[in-house]
Amino acid sequence: MFHGLSAFPLTPLKAGKFDEQTFINLLRPLVDAGVDSLGVLGSTGSYAYLTVEERTHITRCAVEHANDIPVMVSIGALRLDDILRLAEHAQKAGASSVLMAPVSYQRLTTDEVYSLYETVTRQLSVPLCVYDNPATTGFEFSDELMFAVAALPNIGSVKMGRMPEDVSQVRARLPKTVTLGISGDWRAASALQAGFDVWYSVVGGLFPRAALAIAHSEDGTESERLAPLWALFRRYGSLRVMAAAAEMLGKVEAPALPFPLQAIQGEPREALAAILAELKLA
Amino acid sequence: MFHGLSAFPLTPLKAGKFDEQTFINLLRPLVDAGVDSLGVLGSTGSYAYLTVEERTHITRCAVEHANDIPVMVSIGALRLDDILRLAEHAQKAGASSVLMAPVSYQRLTTDEVYSLYETVTRQLSVPLCVYDNPATTGFEFSDELMFAVAALPNIGSVKMGRMPEDVSQVRARLPKTVTLGISGDWRAASALQAGFDVWYSVVGGLFPRAALAIAHSEDGTESERLAPLWALFRRYGSLRVMAAAAEMLGKVEAPALPFPLQAIQGEPREALAAILAELKLA
Repeated sequence: MFHGLSAFPLTPLKAGKFDEQTFINLLRPLVDAGVDSLGVLGSTGSYAYLTVEERTHITRCAVEHANDIPVMVSIGALRLDDILRLAEHAQKAGASSVLMAPVSYQRLTTDEVYSLYETVTRQLSVPLCVYDNPATTGFEFSDELMFAVAALPNIGSVKMGRMPEDVSQVRARLPKTVTLGISGDWRAASALQAGFDVWYSVVGGLFPRAALAIAHSEDGTESERLAPLWALFRRYGSLRVMAAAAEMLGKVEAPALPFPLQAIQGEPREALAAILAELKLA
Repeated sequence: MFHGLSAFPLTPLKAGKFDEQTFINLLRPLVDAGVDSLGVLGSTGSYAYLTVEERTHITRCAVEHANDIPVMVSIGALRLDDILRLAEHAQKAGASSVLMAPVSYQRLTTDEVYSLYETVTRQLSVPLCVYDNPATTGFEFSDELMFAVAALPNIGSVKMGRMPEDVSQVRARLPKTVTLGISGDWRAASALQAGFDVWYSVVGGLFPRAALAIAHSEDGTESERLAPLWALFRRYGSLRVMAAAAEMLGKVEAPALPFPLQAIQGEPREALAAILAELKLA
């Protein structure tokens, strides 16, 4: 399942609670467009803000409406017992794979991160995608650590938050069973052209056809078209931008994000409205 | 309550669960030494890793054993409804004040942080200490934001993670009812000499007499004596160092920290053993 376009939908809230029907409505166009996988409850899906019970319920709902498209869900949490419960529930709910970042309050050490993946992968029956996201975890994988973790059992993919200088060298040091994934939508086209296998995509969670066009494009033009959107992603965070887009397009009720997180407002929101009108994304 | 020495004890775990008797044993020397307040469930008390229910139970236990020393507890959490529940439970349990950092997964914006404090302080009946801890939250308060938050109702103190260039200027811009607190034990002596009111102390949570000696010292010599310990704090994080100290002194069972966090091991642990033997802290 770790190839092509993995689309990461929002998890819409309504008065602070999971809004199930709106979530199902967000999944439908992804399924219809034929994305390669669904990345449910990723950072874009606000997993860190939801309880184990909410996440289990949302996973079940996603699998039920995925129409056999493989579903990946994040099991990241601060505490090991929560991670293991999330993994068990995800597997029972029919998730095809799980995603895990080294979530922290006290920023983790290299040894702690390795121990965490070692402990968790030992107990999995589905493959895990290693999630390097320094912006949210405060932890940046060294190449050495990433290769060591990738060599653990049950690792299916790595989701890198940066472009390595030499992709073929990274590939050569990864086990053959582990695919190479990129996050950060603005660098996806370059990464896919450089030989990455999979794009873990935020924009694809709301505009799957635009993301598929980028993924299938042989040059960078489809991605360049979205440059104004990428600029907003980089400045305000893709989550706050996509939440505003979904609100403005009537796809979710405002506020869709867990307080105190806020969709972009004011000037950047107006800029986004103009971009959406211009690009006519779908 | 926001003056002098506020001692932050560890929250010891045993097989991943709160170890109540060991916690009570950690509180006793703090009460006997006469610290000015207890900062229970701070970062040193692993609050972010514990459930609302565990935190409520620990708060009750602390108040019961504090012998009328005021107890401050952290109500920080990712989600507003958890924060409000924690605040309500803390107040009911008899906490004298609450502490809150802008905890995040998605790093917060200035507007989001202000909204968060505005919303939470509106619902408090005890004063709140504003907790600036960029290392754990990824968010650094600007002076402007700190002054704006400090002017909200029910703010009692600010816990600054850095030394301002001009303390008297900071003081002049804070409401008169808001005390100025320092964290980062290595800078506490200088901060108190520069006119800070309160030291939110990690070392004081295990070695209250050593911390009181620093707080009462008219020059920096008592703090300088602990320079080798401060060096370990800065390099490995005070939590991992204090957990190792408590383990080595038989005050808590190893591992006392929530996995994957680990007390320092190997060479730094040996260095710590030598420091403890040399300094004979109490």
